[in-house]
Amino acid sequence: MTILDIIEKKKIKEELTTEEINFFVEGFTNGTIADYQASALLMAIVLNGMTDRETFDLTQAMLHSGDVVDMSALGGIVVDKHSTGGIGDSTTLALAPILACCGVYVAKMSGRGLGFTGGTIDKLESIPHFDTALSEQEFFDVVKRVGCAVIGQTANLAPADKKIYALRDVTGTVNAIPLICSSIMSKKLASGADTILLDVKYGSGAFMPTPEQALELAEKMVTIGLLAGKKIGALITDMQQPLSDHVGNSLEIIGIAEVLKGAKNRLYYEIREVALRLLALTGKYTLKSAEAAFDEAISSGKALAKFAEMVEAQHGDKSYILDPSKFDLGAKTVVTADKDGYVVGMTAADIGRAVTHLGGGRMQKSDVIDFGVGVVMKVAIGSRLSKGDVLCEVYHRQKGLDEAVELIKGAIEIGADKPAPHKIAYAYVGRDGTEIY
Amino acid sequence: MTILDIIEKKKIKEELTTEEINFFVEGFTNGTIADYQASALLMAIVLNGMTDRETFDLTQAMLHSGDVVDMSALGGIVVDKHSTGGIGDSTTLALAPILACCGVYVAKMSGRGLGFTGGTIDKLESIPHFDTALSEQEFFDVVKRVGCAVIGQTANLAPADKKIYALRDVTGTVNAIPLICSSIMSKKLASGADTILLDVKYGSGAFMPTPEQALELAEKMVTIGLLAGKKIGALITDMQQPLSDHVGNSLEIIGIAEVLKGAKNRLYYEIREVALRLLALTGKYTLKSAEAAFDEAISSGKALAKFAEMVEAQHGDKSYILDPSKFDLGAKTVVTADKDGYVVGMTAADIGRAVTHLGGGRMQKSDVIDFGVGVVMKVAIGSRLSKGDVLCEVYHRQKGLDEAVELIKGAIEIGADKPAPHKIAYAYVGRDGTEIY
Repeated sequence: MTILDIIEKKKIKEELTTEEINFFVEGFTNGTIADYQASALLMAIVLNGMTDRETFDLTQAMLHSGDVVDMSALGGIVVDKHSTGGIGDSTTLALAPILACCGVYVAKMSGRGLGFTGGTIDKLESIPHFDTALSEQEFFDVVKRVGCAVIGQTANLAPADKKIYALRDVTGTVNAIPLICSSIMSKKLASGADTILLDVKYGSGAFMPTPEQALELAEKMVTIGLLAGKKIGALITDMQQPLSDHVGNSLEIIGIAEVLKGAKNRLYYEIREVALRLLALTGKYTLKSAEAAFDEAISSGKALAKFAEMVEAQHGDKSYILDPSKFDLGAKTVVTADKDGYVVGMTAADIGRAVTHLGGGRMQKSDVIDFGVGVVMKVAIGSRLSKGDVLCEVYHRQKGLDEAVELIKGAIEIGADKPAPHKIAYAYVGRDGTEIY
Repeated sequence: MTILDIIEKKKIKEELTTEEINFFVEGFTNGTIADYQASALLMAIVLNGMTDRETFDLTQAMLHSGDVVDMSALGGIVVDKHSTGGIGDSTTLALAPILACCGVYVAKMSGRGLGFTGGTIDKLESIPHFDTALSEQEFFDVVKRVGCAVIGQTANLAPADKKIYALRDVTGTVNAIPLICSSIMSKKLASGADTILLDVKYGSGAFMPTPEQALELAEKMVTIGLLAGKKIGALITDMQQPLSDHVGNSLEIIGIAEVLKGAKNRLYYEIREVALRLLALTGKYTLKSAEAAFDEAISSGKALAKFAEMVEAQHGDKSYILDPSKFDLGAKTVVTADKDGYVVGMTAADIGRAVTHLGGGRMQKSDVIDFGVGVVMKVAIGSRLSKGDVLCEVYHRQKGLDEAVELIKGAIEIGADKPAPHKIAYAYVGRDGTEIY
C-alpha cells in the first residue's frame, strides 16, 4: 500500500478501506506521508466525498492517535454538549450546574479562545482564584462530589486531527462535511462522555452558512456517534446574533448568573432546549420529565447554588457568582440607533471582533485578556427602534473603543420592515431521524 | 490575491483569471507558495478541469518561466515533431533528414532516456564521435547549412513545468488533460519551431490508455498551439507494439538507415504519415505534393545522404550510417514461439524494460548505457506463427539476458484467432477539426 494508490483511488471516487484510512492517518501523523501528498488526498476527499463508513474510520483513526479519556470510574451518566462555535456562547457554563442538579455528570475539558472573545476557560478565569488546571484526580473528585467541573484540556486528544486541521486551514480544504465531522467527532469521542448533544451552528462565521448545510453535517455527526455506540443527538441552531446578550468574559459569567436566577432571555431558551434534549437522550428522562426537572433546578435556586458550589470546589471566589456586581468592569459607553426601524439582521462575528478590539479576546495565543471589557446587547433581531434608542452597552478601558463601536454599528442592521420571527433552533437530529422545528 | 482564494475558486469549479494563474505559477516557482498548497490546487484542477483559456494561460505562464528559443535568424520554416513517448520511437531521427531534403529546417533539442531504452540523444551517441553538445552558434550553423541538427537540450525551457511535474508525480495528479497539455505545450512553444506535429500515443504505458482519451488530449493541445499562433496538428497513434522493429540504441540507428534506404516497414509508414502531415501544415506543400517529395527523398538516396551529412557536420563517423554493419553489437540469441497461433497483442513497455535489463537503458540517471544491446522484432501484431518460429533477436552481453527473455515472452501474446488489422494512426487533428482514420 502506498499513499499514491490511496490518492488515485479517492481521485476516481472509490471507497477507501479501513486499512487505507489508517495508513494515511498514521503515516501523516508520524511524518512518513508528506504534507503535499496529504493535501492532495484532502482535496480529493473535499471534491469526491466519503461514505459514512469511511468517515467513521477516519474519525476512529484520528481518535486513536492520542489519549482516550475513561470516565467509567465515575459510575454514572456522563453527558457532554459540544457547540461548533459561536459568539457569546455561554451555554456550557450555564448548563453544567443545571444538569448536575438533574443527576447527571458534567466533566468538561475545554479550550481557550482565539479570534473572538475568550473561550470557556477564559470566562471561568475571570472569577478570582478559579483553578482551571486541577489534577486529573482532583477533577474527577470534584465531578463526583459536586456533579460538575470544567478544566482546561490536559489530555492529548486526537493529535492527528490537530496536524490535519493545520494543513486543511492553509490548503482550502476546511469546508467538507466528512472532514469537519471526523475532526469534531474524533475529539468528542475521545473525551469520555457517553451521552452527547451537538449544537451545530449555521450563519455567517459558522462552518456552515445555511441551515440545510448545518443539518447535513449534523446528520453525519450523529451517524458517526451512533456507529461509535454513543447516545447522541444534534440541534441545528442559528448564530446570526450572539447567543447571550452578554459578550465578554466577566460579562458572560454575569449573564449566566442572571439565567440561573430565572431571567427568561435568549440564552435561557437555548440552554433549556439543549438541556431537555440531553436529559432525554440519557434515557433517564422523557422530554416531559426533563422539563419539570429543568424548571425546578432554576426556580428552587439549586442551579445557582450548584454553580457557586462548583466555583468553590475549583478554588474560585463564589461570592462573585452570588453577587456579580463585584466583577471589575470597564467604563460604560452606550451605542445608540441612528434611525428608526427594526433590527433585521446582525453579524455576530463582528460583535465578537469588537470585544477582541476592546482587549477581551486574543489576536495571538500569547495575548493577555482583559476580563472586564465587553458588550451587553440591549436589542435582538426583531426589536423595534426609535432613533437614539440604546443598541448596546460597551464596557471598555478606552483601548480600541472607536474601532469596537464602529464594528458594532456595522454589525446591527436596521431596516424599515419587521423581520420574520426568529427561531433559536431549526431542527433536531436524533437516532430516529430529523425533526424540523 | 492569495493562493487560498485561488484554491477555493477552483474547488467550486470557477474559472481562474490569467492573473490568478500567473500568481500560482510564479509563486510556486519562486517558493512563496508551498508545495502542499500547490498540490491541493492541482488536485482541484484534476477533478474540476480547466477551460481552454485557463489551459492556455497555464501553458503561457510555464513557458515564460524560462528561456524561449528564437529561430527567426534561420530565415526559413522550422518544423518540429513531438511524441508523447513510445518504445522504439526512432521517428525524430528518421524524419530529420527527409524533412531537410524537402526544404524545411529541423532544429531539434532532445532529451536523454530514463526508464526504457535510451533517448534520442543516447541513440545518436552510439555513432562514434557524434557531438550532441554543440554550441548554440554551431548548432544554428549546422541547421542552416545541412537543414537539420539534433543536440541535447541546453536552454532552460519551462523550469516551472519541471517543478510542477515533480510534484504531480508524487501526488497522484499526473493524469489530467489540462495539466498534461500545459506541461507538453509549454516546452514545445518555448523551443522555437513555427510548425509542429504532435504524435499522441495511446495504449498501455502511454499517458492515455484509449484512443478516445488520446484524441481529447490531442484536441486540447492543438487548440493551445493555435491560440499561441502556431501551425499545428496532431496524429493519434497506437503504441501497442514498438514503433520500430529495432529497439536499442545502435539498433535503432540501423533501423533508421534501413528505412532511409527504402525498407517499407511499420516505422516507414509511421514517418511517412508524420512527414506528409507536417509538410502540409507548413503551407509549402499539399498532402499530394508532400507525398511526391517524401518518396523522391528516399528513392533518390538523398535522405540517407542527408543523414550521413548531418552526422558528419556534428563530428560523427558517417561511415556507420553508410555501412551499419560496423556497429559493435552484442551476441545474438533468438526467442522463439512456444505454440502455433497469431500475435494478438504486445506490451511494448515490457520490451522497453527488457532492453533496459540488457543494459541498453537507464534505471537511474547516472547509469552508463551499452549501445550495442537490444531487440529486433521479427513479428508484429497479426503475424501468423508456428511453434519454433523466431519472435525476435536479442543482442546482449549476457547481463540481464534471462530477465529480458522472460519479459519479452510475456510481452508477446499469442492467440488462436487472427486479430483485426492493425492501424498505425487512429485520427488526425488539425485546424479544421478531427479526421478519424
